[in-house]
Amino acid sequence: MTIHIAFLVYDRLTALDLVGPYEVLSGLPDVTLQFVAKQAGPVAVDTGAFSLVAPLGLADVTRADVLVVPGSSSGTLDAANDAALIDWIRAIDRTTRFTTSVCSGAILLGAAGLLAAKPATTHWAAMPFLPHFGAEARPDERIVHSGKIITAAGVSAGIDMGLYLAGQLAGAEAAQAAQLLIEYDPMPPFQAGHMSKASSLVKELATRAMARAASGSR
Amino acid sequence: MTIHIAFLVYDRLTALDLVGPYEVLSGLPDVTLQFVAKQAGPVAVDTGAFSLVAPLGLADVTRADVLVVPGSSSGTLDAANDAALIDWIRAIDRTTRFTTSVCSGAILLGAAGLLAAKPATTHWAAMPFLPHFGAEARPDERIVHSGKIITAAGVSAGIDMGLYLAGQLAGAEAAQAAQLLIEYDPMPPFQAGHMSKASSLVKELATRAMARAASGSR
Repeated sequence: MTIHIAFLVYDRLTALDLVGPYEVLSGLPDVTLQFVAKQAGPVAVDTGAFSLVAPLGLADVTRADVLVVPGSSSGTLDAANDAALIDWIRAIDRTTRFTTSVCSGAILLGAAGLLAAKPATTHWAAMPFLPHFGAEARPDERIVHSGKIITAAGVSAGIDMGLYLAGQLAGAEAAQAAQLLIEYDPMPPFQAGHMSKASSLVKELATRAMARAASGSR
Repeated sequence: MTIHIAFLVYDRLTALDLVGPYEVLSGLPDVTLQFVAKQAGPVAVDTGAFSLVAPLGLADVTRADVLVVPGSSSGTLDAANDAALIDWIRAIDRTTRFTTSVCSGAILLGAAGLLAAKPATTHWAAMPFLPHFGAEARPDERIVHSGKIITAAGVSAGIDMGLYLAGQLAGAEAAQAAQLLIEYDPMPPFQAGHMSKASSLVKELATRAMARAASGSR
């Protein structure tokens, strides 16, 4: 039985938030991968370097087994205030087996009321927003699974989340085959990928860059 | 001084091969990220789930500090036989500080004559092709740097390569800030990301899936 996976595309999304889990899940047998934007067509990513063309609009997709909601360095709050987008997330969630977010995509799940009284994670820069939605922030967890909601930490955490989700959907061996297909045997040459591991200078550099990106001036 | 980074987009590319290093490198200060296709416009990714819109055509880009060439599960050989594409890679390489590939993108560097007598890595499924280009295959290395050529293993290895490249271009601290921006602190829930780590069954599942993808039937 085909698993329908919907990937939400919205203005100024962070490309890797979506492409990470997408590429993992594309390695499973019998999946349909649906890229869905407000209207079908091109949507610019947050750096402005390119656009993603979503073949489907919100009106074209009324159910999904899995929903993946990405974050954005500058567009999350606009998206959270877009009633059509948030209503769609809420409606699709009623049909899913898993509703998931990567990075600041958790803000959109929160805005849809899906994180109330739930533990959740997000990008470190978005972490302070989680309590506004009644969520319990888990800054030290890379993937948080609660009921049918799965949230992932910043950007690259979507790959780990995609692999975890692959295991939930198709079992450990199919997930491992998907991992081998994308040769996901990470060997980062530096070890500064979490706030608890980076030096003060690196944290300051990253925090300033984040503020620049959030203001749209890169 | 702005660093110009060109990302080659071609028919049926594997999206994460390009988006991985792109997202890492977008976190560096003073970079210009240029997505370049044969002609400017939309190009479908290998699963057919969406397209990437490249704002620039080959004729628009005559030099780059860094070139990133992605792989494809089904389009690499067509691209390797496209003289305009391969001539462009060869011409841009004459202007770069680093010419890089991810996954089967190494085949395109090979077709451009850039891997002769060089050590290189690629996706496990593409490894047997490297010797045809005079390259010395290094199946156990995730990143191979030789002269100004940097090749990465399959798909997700482009993130590690992007981070390594960030260090080469901008120093360890800027690279670590880019790592923290994308929260790249990998914690894969399975450990089957390399041929030496996967079980026989998982290797067989992945090899069969790869053959299906290569034949274009997903």
